[in-house]
Amino acid sequence: MGKVKVGVLLSGCGVYDGAEIHEAVITLLALDRAGAEIVAMAPNVDQLHVINHLTGDVVPGEKRNVLVEAARIARGNIRDLATVDPAELDALILPGGFGAAKNLCDFALKGADCQVHPEVARVVQGVHQQGKPIGAICIAPALIAKLLGQEHPKLTIGTDKDTAAALEKMGACHEACGVEGVVVDQKAKIVTTPAYMLARSIAEAATGIEKLVKEVLALCGR
Amino acid sequence: MGKVKVGVLLSGCGVYDGAEIHEAVITLLALDRAGAEIVAMAPNVDQLHVINHLTGDVVPGEKRNVLVEAARIARGNIRDLATVDPAELDALILPGGFGAAKNLCDFALKGADCQVHPEVARVVQGVHQQGKPIGAICIAPALIAKLLGQEHPKLTIGTDKDTAAALEKMGACHEACGVEGVVVDQKAKIVTTPAYMLARSIAEAATGIEKLVKEVLALCGR
Repeated sequence: MGKVKVGVLLSGCGVYDGAEIHEAVITLLALDRAGAEIVAMAPNVDQLHVINHLTGDVVPGEKRNVLVEAARIARGNIRDLATVDPAELDALILPGGFGAAKNLCDFALKGADCQVHPEVARVVQGVHQQGKPIGAICIAPALIAKLLGQEHPKLTIGTDKDTAAALEKMGACHEACGVEGVVVDQKAKIVTTPAYMLARSIAEAATGIEKLVKEVLALCGR
Repeated sequence: MGKVKVGVLLSGCGVYDGAEIHEAVITLLALDRAGAEIVAMAPNVDQLHVINHLTGDVVPGEKRNVLVEAARIARGNIRDLATVDPAELDALILPGGFGAAKNLCDFALKGADCQVHPEVARVVQGVHQQGKPIGAICIAPALIAKLLGQEHPKLTIGTDKDTAAALEKMGACHEACGVEGVVVDQKAKIVTTPAYMLARSIAEAATGIEKLVKEVLALCGR
């Protein structure tokens, strides 16, 4: 039996328009230290927009591609999500950052009425239907609520009441959770942690993410 | 006595044209877990070029600013290097990535004949002259060799013979070092580790970087 193979679905490179970099790197490090094989992936689409992370402003007219920018986090070792077969994976983890709610779906714009990118939906639903665990960090549980809400999975985005209400509207059972905690739905095999929805420091985010990775790997049953 | 205040000098956001993201994030996490206060900083200059990290090709005509891109790693909490007084800091750490050899200096183009960006030289030399420790990761020791070579500091970039020879030409005493090790020059208070000069995985890089952070903080004597 080979290594456990865990997909890490990235949404760009930078908290305000892509994947949250600390959350992504801490996930990769925890997986590598646990002996898992990592399959980094991202959809080959343009970002919703580009944010100047120094000023917080949208950069007018600038375009960046989600896969190309996510490749920065993965040091080039990344696959176009369209080429990924859920059957290849033993588990899937989605770091947060606004990219999860702007590029993988449009939750940041439309809330509970959001739509999920078709390739993201295909891979997330495929992994779930095969009975494999999914970890979702920070705001990424919004996307899980949209895709799997009909099963009423238990999950968390921390303590923000408005965001929690939107997730419940999509069918999820939201559970408040502290920054260093995780919520585990053993039946649905979904693990969530608030990370930078609540974290005031990288160490706080890391504690929860390290627990999430451990729980996801435990749910792989290997 | 407040927290130890450690500058982290970034050179962009991405291994091929900026700061190596894993090295930078692992440094931030280790500092935060050790209770240090982090001052992220970068020079406000254009990158040498932009590399598409999916293909490895230069993107013709595209410009990105080192400070603006480095702000992605720092979640916007970063200072223009020009505003940093070495007297504010207790120590300084430079993650690697090609940005350290393309944007902070031009070692990637000119080798031992490289020039260092004046603001980088001012802060690195200022911190050193005040007797405070400096940590340099991956290829960043090249810049230390250029600036402090007249003191013949002991340092490492791993085992690459050509790079080591260039550092020795600039005055440094190169010491070969494995990926999970560090070289500490106790007198010059310079700590170096090879990280992705040698690492085949993020966990390998992390082990060396965590040791480097520990040694730098020990040299702060607090």
